[in-house]
Amino acid sequence: MTQCSFEPPLLAVGVKKDSAGHDIIKEAGVFALSVLGKSHQGQAFAFFKPVEREGDKIGGEVFRKGSTGAPVLSAAVAAIECELVSTVEEGDHSLFVGKVVDAAVQSEIEGRPDDATLALKDLGEKTFYGG
Amino acid sequence: MTQCSFEPPLLAVGVKKDSAGHDIIKEAGVFALSVLGKSHQGQAFAFFKPVEREGDKIGGEVFRKGSTGAPVLSAAVAAIECELVSTVEEGDHSLFVGKVVDAAVQSEIEGRPDDATLALKDLGEKTFYGG
Repeated sequence: MTQCSFEPPLLAVGVKKDSAGHDIIKEAGVFALSVLGKSHQGQAFAFFKPVEREGDKIGGEVFRKGSTGAPVLSAAVAAIECELVSTVEEGDHSLFVGKVVDAAVQSEIEGRPDDATLALKDLGEKTFYGG
Repeated sequence: MTQCSFEPPLLAVGVKKDSAGHDIIKEAGVFALSVLGKSHQGQAFAFFKPVEREGDKIGGEVFRKGSTGAPVLSAAVAAIECELVSTVEEGDHSLFVGKVVDAAVQSEIEGRPDDATLALKDLGEKTFYGG
């Protein structure tokens, strides 16, 4: 995902077309990003594969409904909620462009926020996206 | 910027609407990303502000024409060239979605490629995008 405008605040995220989340976002017109922290390796690996909702959990992780109604993982360090404003469907992932309508920091962060978030390299020396 | 499809390989990049590069990309229908390395702090700061072409340099940096005709910084660790396939113009930046048609690693990389690239935090403890 990437930020793609300051005014209004927009971001863009690629979502696999054959994933359950893809059709839910298209129909609901809203989506939320749950920002994982350095200690969330387990959650990251859990969401590498398709997950299902069971009661108040998705993929075994407790979630809350955000102000947009989109699910936010309770364990997440931060959450960003968006209204869908544009969709590009050119490849095997759709690019959803969302306007940020709500954002929350859910746990205290020390130092730079971009150091507090989980990165692919934190998941192992040979872990790459799509690799 | 973000990758947004594996097949075909697509990426999306936000470009400020009032920048010179914005209109050049729209007209040319191609663009190139020059990937800076850990030692390129100076180049990064140079391109934070508007730059101009002077002969074979842009913003004081030597460039070459890539296979698409788009400019690639010679000092860059790697280059990715794209054909423009879609544009989202919702905010103060346009989101250009490009199909990757050429890519090159221009200098030897040790360790993880994503460790070799320059990150915002390498530019200073208080340097943030837009901050």
